[in-house]
Amino acid sequence: MPEAIDSGIALTWIERVADGRRELDRDEVAIEEPLEIRVDGRALAVTMRTPGHDEELAVGFLIGEGLIGSGRDVESVGPTEEFEGNVVEVSTRSGLRRDPFEERRFHMTSSCGVCGKGALEQVRLAVPDRPPARIALRSERVLGLPGRARAAQEAFDRTGAIHATALFGEAAAPLVLREDVGRHNAMDKAIGSLVRSGPQGARGTVACLTGRIGFELVQKAVMAGIGAIVAVGAPTSLAVSLAQEHDLLMCGFVRDGSFNVYAGATRLTPAV
Amino acid sequence: MPEAIDSGIALTWIERVADGRRELDRDEVAIEEPLEIRVDGRALAVTMRTPGHDEELAVGFLIGEGLIGSGRDVESVGPTEEFEGNVVEVSTRSGLRRDPFEERRFHMTSSCGVCGKGALEQVRLAVPDRPPARIALRSERVLGLPGRARAAQEAFDRTGAIHATALFGEAAAPLVLREDVGRHNAMDKAIGSLVRSGPQGARGTVACLTGRIGFELVQKAVMAGIGAIVAVGAPTSLAVSLAQEHDLLMCGFVRDGSFNVYAGATRLTPAV
Repeated sequence: MPEAIDSGIALTWIERVADGRRELDRDEVAIEEPLEIRVDGRALAVTMRTPGHDEELAVGFLIGEGLIGSGRDVESVGPTEEFEGNVVEVSTRSGLRRDPFEERRFHMTSSCGVCGKGALEQVRLAVPDRPPARIALRSERVLGLPGRARAAQEAFDRTGAIHATALFGEAAAPLVLREDVGRHNAMDKAIGSLVRSGPQGARGTVACLTGRIGFELVQKAVMAGIGAIVAVGAPTSLAVSLAQEHDLLMCGFVRDGSFNVYAGATRLTPAV
Repeated sequence: MPEAIDSGIALTWIERVADGRRELDRDEVAIEEPLEIRVDGRALAVTMRTPGHDEELAVGFLIGEGLIGSGRDVESVGPTEEFEGNVVEVSTRSGLRRDPFEERRFHMTSSCGVCGKGALEQVRLAVPDRPPARIALRSERVLGLPGRARAAQEAFDRTGAIHATALFGEAAAPLVLREDVGRHNAMDKAIGSLVRSGPQGARGTVACLTGRIGFELVQKAVMAGIGAIVAVGAPTSLAVSLAQEHDLLMCGFVRDGSFNVYAGATRLTPAV
């Protein structure tokens, strides 16, 4: 069985097969473990995540689901002693903004999955209190972001199985970068980190994603007030629709010196 | 907004940015829409999926969750008139094997996500009635599978945003290949297809995945009696543990003439 050797990374025995030869060797794999998020004493969700930054994951998840409005709604957040550190407990100041326990749910996952919706009507969450930040970006800036995010990544190079979300402000380096086996978790952690560090949260930042853009990632961005999404991968149809609806600047296939703008092109500079 | 032009593919207006120039163009994106799975009149789950093969998705999902044991447990499955075809209804012959509605659930997604578990104890599903099939594979066969699966893929080339699962028997060509924006859906559809076509279902087949191997994909394979997993991408730690526990032959990083064996190496031939 794989054994943890580093933050988020485990070592496992393998056989390497190449050129007709088989050799015993060891390989690093990304750690995946379940995390239970408990809110005010009740189990709210279980996600498969890479351990680390669990408090940020919990806070970012609650923001993305519209269950809290800002870090001020959180009284405390931290691990419990149970299940080898795989439980994180959140205490709210005055409860959640709606009662998710009222909604009986059974879930499915997908790499562009929807989270916690018991019926089709619930897929689209309530619009956040404030509209998304309207930010402008230069093309050169868009082209440079994936490289800057990649430079801050570590676990991907070692395991090949890690997604990342980097949130950028005005500076060259990201404000925060988080890696996780789940791309939704990576985004929750990055958002949660900024939400915990100040009232501005992730508002007005640019999210740089290492993979594809699914509906739920756009929804998380909108709920957090993120102003633009820049991704190395392709978007889905519903991700494009949601970004257009909220006039979020969204660029995909950002690689090899070119990219596609799927929404909010008027805020890309210079103009044609 | 993107408009559907083909099975699983929509066309959207974009701006292409390259070499300092911006040009209006059109781009094909993978369609992502919510699907509600209803069982015996009750909404059981909503997943974001690429439309098509929805009946297979529903049946494969129920198999993977251990809610039905075989295709014989399904009385009928088909779309309803509601929500523009985004509801699929399953009628069982004698109910589900356990009552998922008893378990209050709120879900999170991750590309290696866990599905429908309201507490950590529920992450591991019950062991299926029959142990996994014990099959042997030759190294040359392992090396050839991704190419054979890729040859049967179509939507990936057009959109860059589609995962696939191919299930192979003895023949060179896959018994079935399914594509979806969600890799869990692609596997559910492929399994559901074989489960619907005969009592053997997916038992004893080899699953070839275009991406990474998360815990839940291994769990779906075990529940369906699949004998081996061959993937282009990397596995997570928990995927390795579960495959070792069930002695599933699991190969990752199958590319460029080499691969790693993470579990079940004794069933790979020829021996060292």
